[in-house]
Amino acid sequence: RKLDKSRQDRLYFDSYTDVTIHEEMIADHVRTNAYRTAILRNSESIRGKVVLDVGAGTGVLSVFCAQAGARKVYAVEACSIAEQAEKIVKQNSLEGTVEVVRGAVETVELPEMADVIVSEWMGYALLHESMLNSVLYARDRWLKPGGLLLPSRAELYIAPISDPVPEDRLHFWYTVKDQYGVDMSCMTDFARRCVRNSDITVSAVSGEDVLSHPARFAELDLRSVTAEELRSVRGKFRCESFGSAAVNAFCVFFTVTFPCSDGERPLLLSTSPFKPETHWKQAVLYLDAPVDVVQDTEVAGEKRQSKTFSIPDWSSEAQP
Amino acid sequence: RKLDKSRQDRLYFDSYTDVTIHEEMIADHVRTNAYRTAILRNSESIRGKVVLDVGAGTGVLSVFCAQAGARKVYAVEACSIAEQAEKIVKQNSLEGTVEVVRGAVETVELPEMADVIVSEWMGYALLHESMLNSVLYARDRWLKPGGLLLPSRAELYIAPISDPVPEDRLHFWYTVKDQYGVDMSCMTDFARRCVRNSDITVSAVSGEDVLSHPARFAELDLRSVTAEELRSVRGKFRCESFGSAAVNAFCVFFTVTFPCSDGERPLLLSTSPFKPETHWKQAVLYLDAPVDVVQDTEVAGEKRQSKTFSIPDWSSEAQP
Repeated sequence: RKLDKSRQDRLYFDSYTDVTIHEEMIADHVRTNAYRTAILRNSESIRGKVVLDVGAGTGVLSVFCAQAGARKVYAVEACSIAEQAEKIVKQNSLEGTVEVVRGAVETVELPEMADVIVSEWMGYALLHESMLNSVLYARDRWLKPGGLLLPSRAELYIAPISDPVPEDRLHFWYTVKDQYGVDMSCMTDFARRCVRNSDITVSAVSGEDVLSHPARFAELDLRSVTAEELRSVRGKFRCESFGSAAVNAFCVFFTVTFPCSDGERPLLLSTSPFKPETHWKQAVLYLDAPVDVVQDTEVAGEKRQSKTFSIPDWSSEAQP
Repeated sequence: RKLDKSRQDRLYFDSYTDVTIHEEMIADHVRTNAYRTAILRNSESIRGKVVLDVGAGTGVLSVFCAQAGARKVYAVEACSIAEQAEKIVKQNSLEGTVEVVRGAVETVELPEMADVIVSEWMGYALLHESMLNSVLYARDRWLKPGGLLLPSRAELYIAPISDPVPEDRLHFWYTVKDQYGVDMSCMTDFARRCVRNSDITVSAVSGEDVLSHPARFAELDLRSVTAEELRSVRGKFRCESFGSAAVNAFCVFFTVTFPCSDGERPLLLSTSPFKPETHWKQAVLYLDAPVDVVQDTEVAGEKRQSKTFSIPDWSSEAQP
């Protein structure tokens, strides 16, 4: 009677996930192409320089940096996937350029300082189990003054949404009596409580369920932010409802920005529900009960984002 | 960079799974209707009798037994879902009949012996994290001699299959070079190794991927089987391939049988890939490498099934 955690088609146990994680990251075209484009557009800053890749995984970003002309790339990776990175580097004949360094970036010793740090460190809703602390450590320890960070900025957004799934799932318990002759409608209370106690839900929010323009509530300048400041990222937000709906959740997502040395506009990697889906999807924080809004209702509050997630302190007010 | 374990649409963390597990079990019509029908068809044996429901969960099977006329139903449940079972019993005005007993069946004290034991104890591939040992304990401790067990028999089946998913996923690594200019084809070795080291994969096998009639390799008479015997369930099997194909896995599934006191044929709950899908789907055990078979190739071997799963000792031989 052990069951799937969700309605997924396929459930993989144990070590099969080792490869699935990397497969899904590489297969995420939005993510991988954003990094590839950002690295190639910064080749002026990378050519002949030293790059540090923090949490290199399969080493694909390191290979991009080598292809952009780096003199040396240190691909630091603590997990056993580093062995695969070694093989990929060899298969691409880049042993002379990319050096896979097995270990945590907090403990490894590199022979030289880096001109550039590249890292794909973002977790769900940006900071959920993210590697950003390691990147900040690497920045302070191994990046030359004035060195380049890819990406260099992160922004957090929030928007009220009306997600049909929880109501559909709650409604299920009212249908049991018709199906099997047993009244199980009291389970809706339990189901509501489970939703309320859950940590974050990661799901692909449909653009049509988003009830306002997303509001930015926090911005991190990765060149200067400290680990201390990350412990309590917070900010105010204010949205105006597009129309009448029942708000039953907030969705939180992020963007990161890559500066571009080719003089063009900075490159944005967005996980907005209005943009093509990424493997990060969006984080959804459910309310205890839906709140009705009408057009132009102001939904405002303050969102704190730390190791744990919680719904923001917020209120809504219809405009006079 | 933490990722979904699979391509699921929605990922629920923590306590939200509490309700999801029960929702998916109740929503599994094949499962729930089989139990409901079996209980109603045994109402002759249940009417006026004492029933013990082992691992009652939300108590839905206990309510079915009360509806079938049981004098008393003891719904034994160790987890906190027992609190919901209490509420459901009240909501259906069955407090006089169904008594929810919170605790492990190995430790609870009941005021009387039972005429009938009902339990939905089956795990993936029948025995993976199943509750069968608890049911056998309850049978030996609380079932009157000659009492009724629902279900009373379980059978395990195996069939060679040709599953396109692993090959598609391995092929992905050959496509990376075209997409991003990085040769990652060496990752296929790692991916194969991950598949090989994985425990079991639970997936809905399509009937068209099954290469022979499934062969039964084990049968458990639940009225007599012992916990000791469960430690090493095994049996020989022999299948004949329908046609030419590359065998890359075996699929394992089970059926359970309910005796019926109404004189009709016993009722079968089947998780065969040729029957409507259940939440158990099928268990898939991947081979290290595909093996070609032609029509009538005999695929034979011995399958052991214990706490861990492994591919059978097997061989294939084309018929002369």
